Amino acid sequence: MSERKTGRERGEEWWQTGIIEMSPGIIRLRGYEIQELIGRVSFPATIWLMLRGELPSEEQAALLGIALGAAVDHGPQAPSIAIARMAITCGVGINSAMASAVNVLGDVHGGAGEQALSFYGDIAVALEGVALDQAVAARLDRFFAEEKGYVPGFGHRFHPVDPRAPRLIAVTREFAARGVVSGRFADIAEAVESEVARRKGKKIPLNIDGATAVIYGELGFPPPLTRGLFVLSRSVGILAHAWEQSQQSERNKGPLPREWLWAYTGTPLRPFPAEGDEGPAEGDEGK
Amino acid sequence: MSERKTGRERGEEWWQTGIIEMSPGIIRLRGYEIQELIGRVSFPATIWLMLRGELPSEEQAALLGIALGAAVDHGPQAPSIAIARMAITCGVGINSAMASAVNVLGDVHGGAGEQALSFYGDIAVALEGVALDQAVAARLDRFFAEEKGYVPGFGHRFHPVDPRAPRLIAVTREFAARGVVSGRFADIAEAVESEVARRKGKKIPLNIDGATAVIYGELGFPPPLTRGLFVLSRSVGILAHAWEQSQQSERNKGPLPREWLWAYTGTPLRPFPAEGDEGPAEGDEGK
Amino acid sequence: MSERKTGRERGEEWWQTGIIEMSPGIIRLRGYEIQELIGRVSFPATIWLMLRGELPSEEQAALLGIALGAAVDHGPQAPSIAIARMAITCGVGINSAMASAVNVLGDVHGGAGEQALSFYGDIAVALEGVALDQAVAARLDRFFAEEKGYVPGFGHRFHPVDPRAPRLIAVTREFAARGVVSGRFADIAEAVESEVARRKGKKIPLNIDGATAVIYGELGFPPPLTRGLFVLSRSVGILAHAWEQSQQSERNKGPLPREWLWAYTGTPLRPFPAEGDEGPAEGDEGK
Amino acid sequence: MSERKTGRERGEEWWQTGIIEMSPGIIRLRGYEIQELIGRVSFPATIWLMLRGELPSEEQAALLGIALGAAVDHGPQAPSIAIARMAITCGVGINSAMASAVNVLGDVHGGAGEQALSFYGDIAVALEGVALDQAVAARLDRFFAEEKGYVPGFGHRFHPVDPRAPRLIAVTREFAARGVVSGRFADIAEAVESEVARRKGKKIPLNIDGATAVIYGELGFPPPLTRGLFVLSRSVGILAHAWEQSQQSERNKGPLPREWLWAYTGTPLRPFPAEGDEGPAEGDEGK
Repeated sequence: MSERKTGRERGEEWWQTGIIEMSPGIIRLRGYEIQELIGRVSFPATIWLMLRGELPSEEQAALLGIALGAAVDHGPQAPSIAIARMAITCGVGINSAMASAVNVLGDVHGGAGEQALSFYGDIAVALEGVALDQAVAARLDRFFAEEKGYVPGFGHRFHPVDPRAPRLIAVTREFAARGVVSGRFADIAEAVESEVARRKGKKIPLNIDGATAVIYGELGFPPPLTRGLFVLSRSVGILAHAWEQSQQSERNKGPLPREWLWAYTGTPLRPFPAEGDEGPAEGDEGK
Repeated sequence: MSERKTGRERGEEWWQTGIIEMSPGIIRLRGYEIQELIGRVSFPATIWLMLRGELPSEEQAALLGIALGAAVDHGPQAPSIAIARMAITCGVGINSAMASAVNVLGDVHGGAGEQALSFYGDIAVALEGVALDQAVAARLDRFFAEEKGYVPGFGHRFHPVDPRAPRLIAVTREFAARGVVSGRFADIAEAVESEVARRKGKKIPLNIDGATAVIYGELGFPPPLTRGLFVLSRSVGILAHAWEQSQQSERNKGPLPREWLWAYTGTPLRPFPAEGDEGPAEGDEGK
Repeated sequence: MSERKTGRERGEEWWQTGIIEMSPGIIRLRGYEIQELIGRVSFPATIWLMLRGELPSEEQAALLGIALGAAVDHGPQAPSIAIARMAITCGVGINSAMASAVNVLGDVHGGAGEQALSFYGDIAVALEGVALDQAVAARLDRFFAEEKGYVPGFGHRFHPVDPRAPRLIAVTREFAARGVVSGRFADIAEAVESEVARRKGKKIPLNIDGATAVIYGELGFPPPLTRGLFVLSRSVGILAHAWEQSQQSERNKGPLPREWLWAYTGTPLRPFPAEGDEGPAEGDEGK
Repeated sequence: MSERKTGRERGEEWWQTGIIEMSPGIIRLRGYEIQELIGRVSFPATIWLMLRGELPSEEQAALLGIALGAAVDHGPQAPSIAIARMAITCGVGINSAMASAVNVLGDVHGGAGEQALSFYGDIAVALEGVALDQAVAARLDRFFAEEKGYVPGFGHRFHPVDPRAPRLIAVTREFAARGVVSGRFADIAEAVESEVARRKGKKIPLNIDGATAVIYGELGFPPPLTRGLFVLSRSVGILAHAWEQSQQSERNKGPLPREWLWAYTGTPLRPFPAEGDEGPAEGDEGK
């Protein structure tokens, strides 16, 4: 393996990648000279090329851009947005304010899209053998037996109907009508929504995570990668809020108005133990 | 100020923003219903709307997207890219790998574009009274008197000519010819490049930071905000590399091949001081 | 719930905590005036008080400090350390270099201690009914049936014997002899090590994660909290390396020597598709 | 430089450090075998050894630990603390919650201690030639001529008197009386406080940053490194709050009570521009 290889070759192999090739004066992304891409490829198409390795059609790129644009912001009550705004008042660069914010787009604050796409994907795989309504029913049976809470991609704590979802599905149908995508994931999502409504006795509508998952599924993105797409999308709102906050004069912005405090719920004032009181306040060998 | 205001009003005022308005079932970005934006506005146009508060023309959005796409990656020897790749092998989410990476796009690894645009801006302001060559000469005089190193936006440690820059200027000229932008910042950048070459006796070519700064200047973005635009751009390469790495089996990836160590340059092996040897190994009261 | 409560009360309740109480001129940690703690309580005892809510004995605090000090560093081939060193060369503050590094102490680069303590804890619970060797055997049976790889807390990719572990166990035994801790977790760890050796035919020694887990278990820290203790510990090495690097002149430090590149393994040079070549390079509607 | 050197040597030299030496079975910190340090050296002494390269006396380590323990927390209205609490509710690891928080200990939220120590250091240097009151007066003259706001290390937005500062100075005096430190920085801080009071007509008391800066100065830490010491200290409060929050059931915790929103101050509802309305809503070529 490293017999005839020089140390430099071993080191350079350690950092191998199939994404970008460089030498002095030359930058190639996925085999294309970068100067041939500039001005010919949209930003969403560049994102696709970097992540997938091949150029999409203009229509595929447009649909990707539509999904990315839909999830950019949900306001300062979203932890990622609040964190960006507080961070920029602390004397750190805008990249660091963005980093602290992006860092919290975790399983609870950003994972639903990935879970929704996995859910649809399970159904899509089953479609190879059964009809859609059967595949949906089977997957929902499994979900309700094993998990609790909303089916991923459905319901919203704030919106009775998430205003972004119906429009995203309508746009997906338009692209399907033009043959850009098949419409299969839109069918799956709508079938899940119907079946859940039938079982629960009320509609639990598709939300932004479920709707963007439809588009990412139509476009062939694997579920874990959609977590990263959500990060690219939400980074826009994070930047916008950090930027707006940076133009104001607040310093060290906390979560509540400056003249407020917080409620203290802990041990009341007590004296520091006197000498000889040295044992652990807790049980034996600490516990 | 807070006389007749309820506590809730005071709290909600503490988190005021002009970017997004929400109520159940309603999301508006900069005054537009989000469902009216979806499918009608490209991702770069959405970015523009979020940051600037108004919709750009399709041409302006396209030019913004071109600049964003040009700076997405510079390979695993860029610290941001290497950090993303190492981070994803440590058992953290892809958002956290991206955050650790974006966090280092600081003054040295991401600040040049902002400095270049400020530099051009100084010249643009002076153009109100003097000719371009005079404004350029005056600004360069000041730079060479006060600072050292390359004029921001020019030169590159790796590329004799950065392959992205000439193409970005050419694209800018095309958009200027169509009246989308004025071409003034392209003129400024080219005049600076010429004058520096005249003074130094050799060409120090425009680089990616200087070229994207031209576009951001043409489009009216203030210099500090372009730092955030670079973050959005580089986030794409960061995601691509984190994703590629995540599909491999390495765990806890360090910077060098696993069988290598590092060179130790410190104090040689020494015995722990015996009892009575208790004084500080350093001078008096520590220094 | 919020009937008679003012908005301010509701807001302050939203940020309630039992850790710290403040009013102008007053700071109390867990009920103690801070000025009574300063100078009377060691740093490890302060850490204990903040996390556990009660003061430890001096001996308990000392043992905590010993565990914290043992895991501070493992050199620049640890991703957290390399990231700290690269980050500080990028023009960000030392706190941001530390943040990017601490951020990767995830399940793979920092989770082993928590898993080891959970493992011991399973055995400790079983001890209420069976002898130690039976509890150990049962837990190992379950582990080898359900998982692969090393038993958490044992083995090391680099060290045949982790030099930190035997010393940490010896110190634990000293504290047990003085009645500060029971020694039960040390017994468990040693029994696991013996039984694994018996089953595998060779010793797979206790490592730093398993050894610090013994101490944290003896001191009564719950497993998930020990992940945070590891962060406090490793933050010291992270700071030391960032500081050392900051005193050198490198800028934008990548993972390999500056004159090296990386191996490119991707698509070879190819021409940008001509007009009319517009379809997706991938299958149908994207795949 | 790299003529006779192998690639491996070049790579290992790229990651050289004087902090830690390792080979299989061996870990040495600053020349000491780690197993000789464990159990003999307190956690603050380990921190000192890692940062300074030499072992401190037990007294020096104790004073360092006192300073580190004093600044661990300032409650949920500190952005770092609020961020830690929100982050842990987003489904990320406790290390990531800590990272997002530590990341904002920047110039405004953590830089005052470094500035205070630099200020004292300027005076300390001048003491080589003039009396203390002259050196203090000169430095204050410069400060009031060039800057605005509080002298670094003095004043507090919340506390009329920061309860931590007098106690830290008293402890410093105790250590000076025992000959562990000189007391010179305590003298400087007290002289600055007096002279500022004389000039302003009211006392602006020493705060936590100014008081810990006294101790770090007495112990010989350079100002930029004290920023990192503050990070180690505040990491304790950050962990305590993240841990406390993690034991509660909130998910995606925002800054305000869940039933509140934020005040919208932006453009009122407006219709999406009709076809033909396509021009930029802003001035000409973007502004």
